[in-house]
Amino acid sequence: MADVLPEAFLRAVAEGFPSDFLTREPGELQEYGRDWTRVYSPAPSAVAFPRTTDEVARLLALCNQYRVPVVPSGGRTGLAAGAVAPRGELVLSLRRMTRMDPVDLLGNSVRVQAGAVTEAVHHHCAEHGLTWPVDFASKGSSQVGGNIATNAGGVKVIRYGLTRQWVLGLQVVTAQGQVLELNGALEKNNTGADLRQLFIGSEGTLGVITEATLKLAPLPGKQDVFLFAVPDVAAVLRLFREARRAPLLLSAYEFFTDKCLARVQRHRKLRSPFEAPSGCYVLMEAEGKDPSEVESWLGSLFERGLVTDGTLAQGASQASELWALREGISESLSATGLPHKNDVSLPVANLEAFCSELDAVFSERYPGWEIALFGHIGDGNLHINIMKPDDMEKAEFLAHTKKADPTMFELVRKHGGSISAEHGIGLLKKDYLSFSRSPAELEMLRTLKRALDPNNILNPGKILDV
Amino acid sequence: MADVLPEAFLRAVAEGFPSDFLTREPGELQEYGRDWTRVYSPAPSAVAFPRTTDEVARLLALCNQYRVPVVPSGGRTGLAAGAVAPRGELVLSLRRMTRMDPVDLLGNSVRVQAGAVTEAVHHHCAEHGLTWPVDFASKGSSQVGGNIATNAGGVKVIRYGLTRQWVLGLQVVTAQGQVLELNGALEKNNTGADLRQLFIGSEGTLGVITEATLKLAPLPGKQDVFLFAVPDVAAVLRLFREARRAPLLLSAYEFFTDKCLARVQRHRKLRSPFEAPSGCYVLMEAEGKDPSEVESWLGSLFERGLVTDGTLAQGASQASELWALREGISESLSATGLPHKNDVSLPVANLEAFCSELDAVFSERYPGWEIALFGHIGDGNLHINIMKPDDMEKAEFLAHTKKADPTMFELVRKHGGSISAEHGIGLLKKDYLSFSRSPAELEMLRTLKRALDPNNILNPGKILDV
Repeated sequence: MADVLPEAFLRAVAEGFPSDFLTREPGELQEYGRDWTRVYSPAPSAVAFPRTTDEVARLLALCNQYRVPVVPSGGRTGLAAGAVAPRGELVLSLRRMTRMDPVDLLGNSVRVQAGAVTEAVHHHCAEHGLTWPVDFASKGSSQVGGNIATNAGGVKVIRYGLTRQWVLGLQVVTAQGQVLELNGALEKNNTGADLRQLFIGSEGTLGVITEATLKLAPLPGKQDVFLFAVPDVAAVLRLFREARRAPLLLSAYEFFTDKCLARVQRHRKLRSPFEAPSGCYVLMEAEGKDPSEVESWLGSLFERGLVTDGTLAQGASQASELWALREGISESLSATGLPHKNDVSLPVANLEAFCSELDAVFSERYPGWEIALFGHIGDGNLHINIMKPDDMEKAEFLAHTKKADPTMFELVRKHGGSISAEHGIGLLKKDYLSFSRSPAELEMLRTLKRALDPNNILNPGKILDV
Repeated sequence: MADVLPEAFLRAVAEGFPSDFLTREPGELQEYGRDWTRVYSPAPSAVAFPRTTDEVARLLALCNQYRVPVVPSGGRTGLAAGAVAPRGELVLSLRRMTRMDPVDLLGNSVRVQAGAVTEAVHHHCAEHGLTWPVDFASKGSSQVGGNIATNAGGVKVIRYGLTRQWVLGLQVVTAQGQVLELNGALEKNNTGADLRQLFIGSEGTLGVITEATLKLAPLPGKQDVFLFAVPDVAAVLRLFREARRAPLLLSAYEFFTDKCLARVQRHRKLRSPFEAPSGCYVLMEAEGKDPSEVESWLGSLFERGLVTDGTLAQGASQASELWALREGISESLSATGLPHKNDVSLPVANLEAFCSELDAVFSERYPGWEIALFGHIGDGNLHINIMKPDDMEKAEFLAHTKKADPTMFELVRKHGGSISAEHGIGLLKKDYLSFSRSPAELEMLRTLKRALDPNNILNPGKILDV
């Protein structure tokens, strides 16, 4: 581990900040030096725990002065190693910055510090009939700042869009330690380029988000949760087309294959939702306008052979049971095996062609391997999990997938897709960025990075090298 | 008029482009040198009419080489002089680039060239039950590229959000003549900073938008249109709070004062919607979930004294009549007098305090003057129109308002507002930008501009000087 912290920097921190501001304790370095990606070894030099924006600003000014590389760090639930510190960086943890202001009931918004946990924000707003509709399985650990810095997606994007749409204002500290207050609590503000947008999704490489004013939505009305069995991916897409034109307001349209279901059943000891096995399953959540209309739409699906089986959850506990089949997948794959994860997206119109060509890639590169497909297919987003064969060594498996990934990414590119729909790039997908961004785009990304962080202290080496 | 076009540049254009590519005809210079802002005199050196992205790219490369300043130009319906060419610039008109691809019914999107007229896009999509929900009075002239470059707002923002939310992909030509294809037709794509967002709302100062893939929404269901009479702005806001919690999906919540109504009635020869006069009016458009629920909600408004009068349009023609009262305001103010326009926004929670303090500013700076207030109050957006007194010269009026504006902008700043909610900055509001953006933000805007357009050829002098 290279220790990159100059003595003078450490003295300045000791003099200017509280005594519990910085830790270099090995256990904490291990803990705060990594996110949920388990491919890189954490090796930070120190971890800082600021309590205020002013502390963040003063710290970054010092880091800039002494050229100390900084890894901004939230709930560390990321899957692309965006919050991993493998090279002696200083981790800047936002975990002490958890303040949540009272909910603004006139503006339907709430200002919080970046370290507020997603689920805590949900609880904070729910008593007022409001929610921040950024929702995914790791909401119990993920933090607001990290959600914004990664433009998090999740299971409700089809109804609410990405995190980007639910941020009214941002407070950001620049690489130079300047504090920007961007857009306040305004819905409309056309006064030059919208700097907020630069920081949303930039994975901490352009600035550190310290506070945010979140836009809130009314809690949704009564949701119906459906589970359907269909033979294959083409049928999943056919049903999607129908569902989008149905008398329903869709809030989730998720799919998974029989392989995923088998892993969830094995890990969580659940019984099968249907008597006959099926190739694919669709979990659909929707707000119906009129129960009898929904009923007759449902009937027509069977009549027209669009589904082979289906169930509508009766009550909240059945709904949770159905959701558990979908939300348990990621955890079950990791608990029962070693998945190599990819998170791609395609234009919805190209999904079918992509999926049928994908099968050819699988048979060529992974003949006979177990592949678990699931995802937010209504947004064009597929999670592709190649499972390590039981009789293969981990190193051989990783080497094999690394070699095979480009074939798949080539297919993604051919169909106008993205090699990272919602996980981000971080360190994990950096080598493949050019499959989704052109040389001109990469050059513009570098230009922006150099302009805003000339000393390259903010999450250096993440997304791309400058 | 300074002619800034070097001979060598003109020769290169003559050699490399069709003979009808460039015009220097005085009538066309006048026409294409201005937008709907009538404060600056148009004085372009030439107007170019490319047909393809390749022509735009080659033209910009030449402009960059010869340091020719360029004003990108769409439907020229802007109100902040963002598309005015007052200093010998080359106007780059997108008017020949009107191609619209077939609607993608799987992806609910459509790719069009930047010169496609907003309303033409609406017609193109409507037959498929879809719409691009960017909607405002000038939609018959405004173009897609201009809408995106100004992040246009309008009357449906409360339901659909700003233009920014309805852009999947952008094709942009940089100052150096490079073509960027940003985001294709993807809903989800977290592969580094989202460059699309930089160009949306940057008023042609960072790049020229040549094509866009627009995200489409289903055409809305049956809309109810209501007109309510209420005594004052406080009552408008009280009613808004109720409406937002009503069993309705709001698509518009617009207000106007008695002064606006009087001007519309005078200009369009319309009769009063209600028997008794009132201080303020609210036009509300909404999709009701259940007619009987809407009925009883409406009744409760009267019972609780929240409105003094009200009407629900019976049928489409009555609905248009009510809408005409609101949509005719801008035109009627200009036709019956000379308005000095401001377009401010406030956090919704601060609107009431702002409006009550605004009265004090009016009595101090404009004692006894006619002031016509209207706007998209559900988004916190107020259009403030100071009408020229009949017995005052135009020059004196303009000088007076220019002196008085900062007092109002100071109040906007105090309440966390924006001096330009949807019109943009252009030339018209440039001197006041610092009321809405901090010195650190202005410096970052300059840094971005210098990084992306080092020779300052793209709409130079608009938004801010570098």
